[in-house]
Amino acid sequence: MGVVLGANQYGKSENRVVRVYRDTDRHEIRDLNVSTWLRGEFTDAHITGDQANVLPTDTQKNTAFAYAKEHGVTSPEDYAVALGRHFLDAAPPATGALVQVDEYAWDRIDVDGQGHDHSFLRRGTETRRTWVTVDGRGEDQKVWVVSGFTDLTVFKSTGSEFRGFLKDRYTTLQETDDRILATSLTVSWRHEGTAPQPGTDWEASYERTKKTLLATFATTYSRALQETLYAMGQAVLESDPGIAELKFSAPNKHHFLVDLDPFGLKNGGEVFIAADRPYGLIQATVSRDDSSEPGLAWQAVPAFA
Amino acid sequence: MGVVLGANQYGKSENRVVRVYRDTDRHEIRDLNVSTWLRGEFTDAHITGDQANVLPTDTQKNTAFAYAKEHGVTSPEDYAVALGRHFLDAAPPATGALVQVDEYAWDRIDVDGQGHDHSFLRRGTETRRTWVTVDGRGEDQKVWVVSGFTDLTVFKSTGSEFRGFLKDRYTTLQETDDRILATSLTVSWRHEGTAPQPGTDWEASYERTKKTLLATFATTYSRALQETLYAMGQAVLESDPGIAELKFSAPNKHHFLVDLDPFGLKNGGEVFIAADRPYGLIQATVSRDDSSEPGLAWQAVPAFA
Amino acid sequence: MGVVLGANQYGKSENRVVRVYRDTDRHEIRDLNVSTWLRGEFTDAHITGDQANVLPTDTQKNTAFAYAKEHGVTSPEDYAVALGRHFLDAAPPATGALVQVDEYAWDRIDVDGQGHDHSFLRRGTETRRTWVTVDGRGEDQKVWVVSGFTDLTVFKSTGSEFRGFLKDRYTTLQETDDRILATSLTVSWRHEGTAPQPGTDWEASYERTKKTLLATFATTYSRALQETLYAMGQAVLESDPGIAELKFSAPNKHHFLVDLDPFGLKNGGEVFIAADRPYGLIQATVSRDDSSEPGLAWQAVPAFA
Amino acid sequence: MGVVLGANQYGKSENRVVRVYRDTDRHEIRDLNVSTWLRGEFTDAHITGDQANVLPTDTQKNTAFAYAKEHGVTSPEDYAVALGRHFLDAAPPATGALVQVDEYAWDRIDVDGQGHDHSFLRRGTETRRTWVTVDGRGEDQKVWVVSGFTDLTVFKSTGSEFRGFLKDRYTTLQETDDRILATSLTVSWRHEGTAPQPGTDWEASYERTKKTLLATFATTYSRALQETLYAMGQAVLESDPGIAELKFSAPNKHHFLVDLDPFGLKNGGEVFIAADRPYGLIQATVSRDDSSEPGLAWQAVPAFA
Repeated sequence: MGVVLGANQYGKSENRVVRVYRDTDRHEIRDLNVSTWLRGEFTDAHITGDQANVLPTDTQKNTAFAYAKEHGVTSPEDYAVALGRHFLDAAPPATGALVQVDEYAWDRIDVDGQGHDHSFLRRGTETRRTWVTVDGRGEDQKVWVVSGFTDLTVFKSTGSEFRGFLKDRYTTLQETDDRILATSLTVSWRHEGTAPQPGTDWEASYERTKKTLLATFATTYSRALQETLYAMGQAVLESDPGIAELKFSAPNKHHFLVDLDPFGLKNGGEVFIAADRPYGLIQATVSRDDSSEPGLAWQAVPAFA
Repeated sequence: MGVVLGANQYGKSENRVVRVYRDTDRHEIRDLNVSTWLRGEFTDAHITGDQANVLPTDTQKNTAFAYAKEHGVTSPEDYAVALGRHFLDAAPPATGALVQVDEYAWDRIDVDGQGHDHSFLRRGTETRRTWVTVDGRGEDQKVWVVSGFTDLTVFKSTGSEFRGFLKDRYTTLQETDDRILATSLTVSWRHEGTAPQPGTDWEASYERTKKTLLATFATTYSRALQETLYAMGQAVLESDPGIAELKFSAPNKHHFLVDLDPFGLKNGGEVFIAADRPYGLIQATVSRDDSSEPGLAWQAVPAFA
Repeated sequence: MGVVLGANQYGKSENRVVRVYRDTDRHEIRDLNVSTWLRGEFTDAHITGDQANVLPTDTQKNTAFAYAKEHGVTSPEDYAVALGRHFLDAAPPATGALVQVDEYAWDRIDVDGQGHDHSFLRRGTETRRTWVTVDGRGEDQKVWVVSGFTDLTVFKSTGSEFRGFLKDRYTTLQETDDRILATSLTVSWRHEGTAPQPGTDWEASYERTKKTLLATFATTYSRALQETLYAMGQAVLESDPGIAELKFSAPNKHHFLVDLDPFGLKNGGEVFIAADRPYGLIQATVSRDDSSEPGLAWQAVPAFA
Repeated sequence: MGVVLGANQYGKSENRVVRVYRDTDRHEIRDLNVSTWLRGEFTDAHITGDQANVLPTDTQKNTAFAYAKEHGVTSPEDYAVALGRHFLDAAPPATGALVQVDEYAWDRIDVDGQGHDHSFLRRGTETRRTWVTVDGRGEDQKVWVVSGFTDLTVFKSTGSEFRGFLKDRYTTLQETDDRILATSLTVSWRHEGTAPQPGTDWEASYERTKKTLLATFATTYSRALQETLYAMGQAVLESDPGIAELKFSAPNKHHFLVDLDPFGLKNGGEVFIAADRPYGLIQATVSRDDSSEPGLAWQAVPAFA
């Protein structure tokens, strides 16, 4: 019997990089959480402890900060692509680099109806996220870009039903034609192409996709969270040929109608208890029938994230 | 030697009450986390295990939900006052009731420039919070209202210095005349008066106070976080005679300038690492010299919250 | 009208100090989370921004680490007392110092029945905690020591009832003579005396008190969590004259019997759902009738912690 | 262009199932967090909203609780296998079932040197975890069992170096021949075979594997965390032919030596700051060269968990 090394990767997680643009008095800020990993020929590091092939995670950290200055941060995607490509140059034993960048949004503080030049308020809704996978070098290099967000929490106070479902001896759930639908969305979408161009407007793409997802959630009557997610994916795919595929992970944040009968009160869909656990968890992938193959695009992305 | 019971209270924490107003097609929602406690004559419950004086925490929970319907939620403060007063009626052995209500804010989802009727997006910045203490019954009843928020995160990319401080043999900190100032604010303010009136516009009061705090943070040059907090409190007290006192608790969320010299890069206040721990913690109380006495107003509020 | 500064304090929170004793091959480790605050004459810092009286929180951090070497860590209490006393020497404008030290416990990894010399496994039950308040200087200096822990989670699968309670129109809870009692205990106890001596065996005191609390929880039939907490405090006070007072904060972690009737199954107290929220919260103070006055002992301790 | 549904699954996450065995006065408890998902033919649910194929997540929840009674919990693995197999019977449209069960460990409370009959103390170290994937029905049914744990935190105060690594222009890390090595281990191991037998002693297997992993961590001199993880995997594979493969995910919890020189103190590897972020993240898979194919075994397991 021999013991063998299988899939492996290593890197530095959660570098909290804050980039301030202060070329004029009106500052801009980008607030990032950057994680990077390398894949490649690291067998010796595991078996003999020889680190000659290992670019330290500390160096990866230094690079994440240095690149915020050298390359700059016009978008999480653009910065992540530059960082991933760099690591393949810096570490010859690596065959691939994975980069995840989270971004926290800030608004300018309002002072007399104007946004302040250098004072900001954390927006605090969703966390924008991008995953970039870079594989190979030179002519053969492929770069996959996935964009998305996590923890965007939405709520419909009506316009949602759940009925006609399969029943067995353990089924006690009553059918309902009016319920609250709430979820904390994690959505990731893969962009077409494996050679992203410098001038790409990732900012506009992100805002447009998020807007379409939200508007579809709002305006779609829901027979199940599955149907709502599918409709959201469909709306994006039909309006943006640059997006190849979307993955959804959506906890069904249950809101149970409180029984007020014992207190002589009628609860006409007005008072709910928001439950923590357990929660339904709905996960789905939606693509178009002529989308490109995903290749390694999802390698950096936890399942269904 | 005898063993004696000292200060004690009991209640139900974190009732996640969601109230939907659906009288018209344009729904409104209030999303609350409600905690209540009773104080009073509960010695038997502790010493002999006799529960005759104890209104169960389960009943307190039921009441929190029932009151969302019976009394309604026009504001966290108004709802908390009603709930606290009720408990003194319901539980004769109680001498006081404490209520804490957190509120999570939601915006309407934008669809073609219009907020949707019944689909909402969690705003996700600060958590609005109120604490109400009710003491006594009838003519002698006093009700203190404290309003505030927690986790409102703000950031100044310049306009902050720190120098001229006391030094000892353990001091290594360099003075700076330009640093990032960032904090996650918890602020609570005590309202004047102990007999809040039904028609009080708590919503306007909250928005006005928050706006003053934020604008002062934005526009005040900061020689220390202490000075900034004091200025924020002063601005509120000078503009609103209905507010008697403010308490601030502000972690100094350090952003350290990253040394890019080893990489041949100049870091002109552009790249920072946002640190988690340790963090400075600045806590202060600001009032006016003719403010009323606090009485039991802060009984429900953890120190400096 | 004039604006005035009230109670205030400042310091450095959550210094993660790890102290390794390696004088022999058999290492010892102390894993701490240290927070310190100063109180005193800091009006100028708030009002004019003058920091001449302010010993920076960065210096407090440095000192927390330096003292782990200079003074050493024989116990959280001894280290906290030394640190607090030092700050009054270092910062003349301070009138008081507060220190909180959390300690995380580690066991040696078992190798063939022996604990390893320098490899450890995080124990991970409760967090041991101490709060020390130092007030004044020289002859008049007083030092209060509070010891305790947080998040010690205990569970009784029987031996607990809840009945005979007060009822009102919102009461729906059924009485029960057999339920699960589970809680995550936060307990703090104040030691007698305000001049702790260097040779005090804080380690033995902590273990003894924890053991008494646990054994009493285990062996006391519970008519309510209040009664159980009181019995636990009583057992400590009766066995240790050095402890003056205990404060308990205990969330009642509800375990609800699952209704299996719809599935033709009888649930004889065998299957429960552990609920997250809401939870009962029981808080109580127990002392002896001849305990010393608490003075400022609890100043560093959040209410009921 | 047509929109198509890709990989999808749905289920109920985090059912907090507590099972008490009370056949004698000496109770036993199993404290579980159970999540289940179904995969199969659910296209209609997504596209037309027709739920006829969907066994509700609420039913999955009911079943998780009912099975704690009907089937019982002799081990997380045995219970998970039973539950997964049941779902394929209950839901004809499903082609596969995934089950994750976390278990929290409890010790008996010590009373005079004896463990109490029905009072328990949460152990609180690692969370034991199992993932089971069931695919197909009848003769063709395959069942994969993965066991493991998360958050087992270990620490070596010496016996660890890091040197000889690859350097580039962003490398500033100094080589070291004596450092602290600390990590919070998540390890999962796949068992050989796809037809687990009822009498399998999963309890012994878990304890044995954990013991081997820990002892190897303790006694292996570490030239890198990669080498240590590989050695741990190798030790398990060499001693237990029933285990086919292990996956490790190990954050390198950095402990930085504090510079005490400015204070005239020598720090001989005695005082460290435990850092939160960023952290190295090392992930590796180790198997034997004749291990069976993994099939769908890892379908339920997040990448590298």
